[in-house]
Amino acid sequence: MANILDLHPDRLLPAEPATRLIARQLYDSVASLPIVSPHGHTDPAWFAKNEAFGDATDLLLKPDHYIFRMLYSQGIPLEALGIGDSLADPREAWRLFASHYHLFRGTPSRMWLDWVFAAVFGMKVQFGAATSDLYYDSITESLASEAFRPRALFDRFGIEVIATTEGPLDTLDHHAAIRAENRKAGGWQGKVITAYRPDAVIDPEFEGFTANLGRLSDLTGEDCFTWSGYLAAHRQRRAVFAEMGATSSDHGHATPRTANLRPDEAASLFAKIVSGMFDMHDAELFRAQMLTEMAGMSVDDGLVMQIHPGSFRNHNASLFARFGRDKGADIPMRTEFVANLKPLLDRFGNDPRLSIILFTLDESVYARELAPLAGHYPCLKLGPAWWFHDSPEGMRRFRHMTTETAGFYNTVGFNDDTRAFLSIPARHDVARRIDCGFLAQLVVEHRLADWEAAELARDLTYNLVKTAYRL
Amino acid sequence: MANILDLHPDRLLPAEPATRLIARQLYDSVASLPIVSPHGHTDPAWFAKNEAFGDATDLLLKPDHYIFRMLYSQGIPLEALGIGDSLADPREAWRLFASHYHLFRGTPSRMWLDWVFAAVFGMKVQFGAATSDLYYDSITESLASEAFRPRALFDRFGIEVIATTEGPLDTLDHHAAIRAENRKAGGWQGKVITAYRPDAVIDPEFEGFTANLGRLSDLTGEDCFTWSGYLAAHRQRRAVFAEMGATSSDHGHATPRTANLRPDEAASLFAKIVSGMFDMHDAELFRAQMLTEMAGMSVDDGLVMQIHPGSFRNHNASLFARFGRDKGADIPMRTEFVANLKPLLDRFGNDPRLSIILFTLDESVYARELAPLAGHYPCLKLGPAWWFHDSPEGMRRFRHMTTETAGFYNTVGFNDDTRAFLSIPARHDVARRIDCGFLAQLVVEHRLADWEAAELARDLTYNLVKTAYRL
Amino acid sequence: MANILDLHPDRLLPAEPATRLIARQLYDSVASLPIVSPHGHTDPAWFAKNEAFGDATDLLLKPDHYIFRMLYSQGIPLEALGIGDSLADPREAWRLFASHYHLFRGTPSRMWLDWVFAAVFGMKVQFGAATSDLYYDSITESLASEAFRPRALFDRFGIEVIATTEGPLDTLDHHAAIRAENRKAGGWQGKVITAYRPDAVIDPEFEGFTANLGRLSDLTGEDCFTWSGYLAAHRQRRAVFAEMGATSSDHGHATPRTANLRPDEAASLFAKIVSGMFDMHDAELFRAQMLTEMAGMSVDDGLVMQIHPGSFRNHNASLFARFGRDKGADIPMRTEFVANLKPLLDRFGNDPRLSIILFTLDESVYARELAPLAGHYPCLKLGPAWWFHDSPEGMRRFRHMTTETAGFYNTVGFNDDTRAFLSIPARHDVARRIDCGFLAQLVVEHRLADWEAAELARDLTYNLVKTAYRL
Repeated sequence: MANILDLHPDRLLPAEPATRLIARQLYDSVASLPIVSPHGHTDPAWFAKNEAFGDATDLLLKPDHYIFRMLYSQGIPLEALGIGDSLADPREAWRLFASHYHLFRGTPSRMWLDWVFAAVFGMKVQFGAATSDLYYDSITESLASEAFRPRALFDRFGIEVIATTEGPLDTLDHHAAIRAENRKAGGWQGKVITAYRPDAVIDPEFEGFTANLGRLSDLTGEDCFTWSGYLAAHRQRRAVFAEMGATSSDHGHATPRTANLRPDEAASLFAKIVSGMFDMHDAELFRAQMLTEMAGMSVDDGLVMQIHPGSFRNHNASLFARFGRDKGADIPMRTEFVANLKPLLDRFGNDPRLSIILFTLDESVYARELAPLAGHYPCLKLGPAWWFHDSPEGMRRFRHMTTETAGFYNTVGFNDDTRAFLSIPARHDVARRIDCGFLAQLVVEHRLADWEAAELARDLTYNLVKTAYRL
Repeated sequence: MANILDLHPDRLLPAEPATRLIARQLYDSVASLPIVSPHGHTDPAWFAKNEAFGDATDLLLKPDHYIFRMLYSQGIPLEALGIGDSLADPREAWRLFASHYHLFRGTPSRMWLDWVFAAVFGMKVQFGAATSDLYYDSITESLASEAFRPRALFDRFGIEVIATTEGPLDTLDHHAAIRAENRKAGGWQGKVITAYRPDAVIDPEFEGFTANLGRLSDLTGEDCFTWSGYLAAHRQRRAVFAEMGATSSDHGHATPRTANLRPDEAASLFAKIVSGMFDMHDAELFRAQMLTEMAGMSVDDGLVMQIHPGSFRNHNASLFARFGRDKGADIPMRTEFVANLKPLLDRFGNDPRLSIILFTLDESVYARELAPLAGHYPCLKLGPAWWFHDSPEGMRRFRHMTTETAGFYNTVGFNDDTRAFLSIPARHDVARRIDCGFLAQLVVEHRLADWEAAELARDLTYNLVKTAYRL
Repeated sequence: MANILDLHPDRLLPAEPATRLIARQLYDSVASLPIVSPHGHTDPAWFAKNEAFGDATDLLLKPDHYIFRMLYSQGIPLEALGIGDSLADPREAWRLFASHYHLFRGTPSRMWLDWVFAAVFGMKVQFGAATSDLYYDSITESLASEAFRPRALFDRFGIEVIATTEGPLDTLDHHAAIRAENRKAGGWQGKVITAYRPDAVIDPEFEGFTANLGRLSDLTGEDCFTWSGYLAAHRQRRAVFAEMGATSSDHGHATPRTANLRPDEAASLFAKIVSGMFDMHDAELFRAQMLTEMAGMSVDDGLVMQIHPGSFRNHNASLFARFGRDKGADIPMRTEFVANLKPLLDRFGNDPRLSIILFTLDESVYARELAPLAGHYPCLKLGPAWWFHDSPEGMRRFRHMTTETAGFYNTVGFNDDTRAFLSIPARHDVARRIDCGFLAQLVVEHRLADWEAAELARDLTYNLVKTAYRL
């Protein structure tokens, strides 16, 4: 007989009874606060079109690189999971997943999935080889019903606002459609905003960079092969994004290097870049300069700037050649912030209009670099534990290593940062539980009064994110 | 109504009841041991002159860069706090501090300040906007009384000995005055010693370096623009410092790089440095060579050598231009010890007369580099968790990451390293509580016998520091 | 009176009672599983000849660099311990050790030693100055008896299989003798296998490298001064090692750098290396290329490849000159895997026949680099916490920092990696206790079902190591 699937009400709370009691009270006070999701990768088309999601494999397995990277690491070919243009039978792919579910023990994916299975789909028994078909059929059947369409789930999840992420070349039609729906009498009221992610037109090493500049020129009427036209095009697109609700930009560079070139130097560098006659150092310098340019635009238009550095993208060359980006082969690298950010900070670091949220995949910088920087510069705040570190232990390390130097108020609440829409409440729930557990530890060690912890629980869950992202 | 200010007797002890009980017993056995403060930045003039400290803002806010960096990070201009030549009203500055006291939740500053408020000034309600004036007036009034003069507080705090830090150009008049007082019949008996911190005449990139060499020449009668005269001047000043009680030198280089040049190479390098025609690599090499020279002098005169590397000083250029040094804008950097220390260790590493205490702002080196080095070389010991890491979590990480490889006996007890005189007992108290909590964990996990933990509690609090600093 | 020596049944289990209860149940279910020791440095001669071990100092003090590095760090000369060609009296050396046993408080050596004293030798009182001679005499007397011969202890320890480590120049005579014994009617049945550790013929900077190539030529009949002969010799020796049970190779390079040169480039580089006219960059590139060559051979012959990078060997130059290798002066260095492994992974990373086990002395790479790499590449697995980190806290950090990204099933169980034969059960016992404590935490936080934890306890103790090492 299959084992019962059980979401214990005290999951993730500290084991020590007095601490758990305090943590539970704190958690109860924030558990049902609305979800504010200021950074993520859901598809605005879901909310614009409100079509049904498809089958279990389509929705939960094939798009989730957390899942298939783990299966791949244990020798399961991506083709067998239906990734890429594979024609694998979805039920068979799902069975492979089910029969290897033990691989996820101790991982956050396991916690998120169990929540989705139990809380979204009402499954009562644990997932595994014996229950694979039961799961596949139940989930696929549910997904066909009205109650599991994107807008219904959005409302059910208590999402107050969600941001998606688009590039400057995106015409934001889905966002426009959602806004039209919002304005319609009796229309759906879900708030979906965009965010400005210009990597594809900033990184000279991005696939199709030159073609992208051509498309940006077409879209904006600016000549994006001149420095002034290129900058004007950014300004124009940022304004368009802001009209579609954007309050932030996002930058996924390999390093957080910044530069502060003189205008003529920057123009010369740009000319070299668009000529195609540049080397990797030129490309890195250009990205660096563009972070500073983006900061300057943020000073003017108020978009909060997010920097997500430190991922070695597409590390597995042959997998990339066969399957393309985002296939679980992005690997974190050592990241340096203190010297890298200085040029930008020298220029704008004390400007009260600027707000930059820093993320890292290199936890060794939490206490050494990020907390001291955010604990000094008015423009810097710390984003939450990110990606591989968006996990119970990762979040604990984040709080343990940043709080004493940066405090709580130089952090910005939680980001789910996901395209796995159904897991969003589970992810926020993990963050709330871990934060309440951390606060409870401070209370039980008499480092914080209980009323302060209660105030902080609400701040970390709801208030900080709204302020930091200007929502 | 304001909330009660309460210093719970079990604060910072582990939550688990059996562990807390053991920790409390250990703590009780060391709580009232004398304070030995072998490294810090109190002003010897306080003890020489014994004048009253001024108002609450003057004493507690304006000199404490831990506090104003946090306020600055949240957008409060330093001018509003009376920093620099600002004429801000001290009561208004204090109100700003009070109304932002929530920023310090979870930080060690909060713990130290609450102790100062409660234990030194007898405040009964929590600090905040509503109690700002009450605090300002009470503290300012207390500070005017005899009982709050420096010597009275020194005695009340149970300080057995405290070291200040002076540069070679300091004539140590205050120290001489204190010693004269000590010798007077019925004179104050407080023991205040100096330490030799020669950065300003060793670092070619220090502001005023050349002028400093001139002053060092005047002071010593040596020609400090020749290599031999320069070295002789150091020897002379070290001897003078030793007469004023110094048992240690201190070196605040950006990196722990050392060099072991031949004498003629060192002399050539020095000639280049004093010519002013040097680049940053020459400067770094000179600092590196001087660490080895200082080690050589330590072998002869017995001063214990402290190395405090890894701070990027004055990171915020415009703030430095307006307000100068030590304004909360020093940011830690990644630091490498294994290759950097080798030249010095190749020369002196096995000499039983040498003792070097290593500090770091880069916790990633605790387990990887520092503990293995200190667990092998007879001349190396580990200083306690420093600066940003002088905090409950920082101290826990220090013990967790160094003990298994270096043991306890290659560490040197606690340093308060502060100019915030009133917080010194609070800082030592935090260290004692955290150490006792760590020992209690070892006992409850049956890794240490209870009698050993009791011996260690006393060693970590009192014996190791006296031995390591040759006090 | 001396204190009782007591091995508490709950040692190393979490303090919190509910967690401890679960941990104890898990531990009880795996405590008596056989020991599988897939990587270590015991001497096959012990099992081939089965001679008595000598006195207490000979067996427990003189070969254990964990012990004498700590004594040396506190000023005890190696000569006084009988290291090198010192003629120190073994009883006096033992007394020095005994009178400094407090130095080991909080270290894993202390835990292992206490286990050896209590469980192997039946000592009832704690080790120290007062009991030094009692210990020396008891242990030395025991060692003279049949029950303390190597094979008897091997059987008593419940060792199912143990791997030693030999270089390609080793003729494996002891292994042959053990196999002959195994085959004898009524012969000893202990399973002792070798592992292929070719550093001395791969690292051009190894002492005697050129002479080693000559010996390798003699041994194999290949001309090891030609690239093709050199590779053929490796293939031949690997096959011989496999006949003596080897299922793995082991590589102790300073860095995990790999290269993927064209065959002609590799041949040219090798020619340069054997000419002796190479610099340190050539040497590093050659080691890098050889890791990839070894991976290629593993694809063919199935030996699992272990990489143990990041140790700065023989850091203390004068100690090395006097006493040679392995004297406690190997210091970990910062280590980079993401870029360094890419050339090898580009060539073989997706080959299902290849298995590489990665170790590190740089814990900052656990969560940042190693777990993401092992959580994606089919050929990569994570070795357990190694050397300085083979300790309770080190193992906890390993699980806390790798599990959420790599899961449990990309790890390979425990390695004792020791030449201290008597401590092997103690080391495995520590690993079992820490793993069960970690699993118990997951259960009590409701992140894992109890039946899953029970399955995992057995997997981490027994199943994973057998699969990963192909035993």
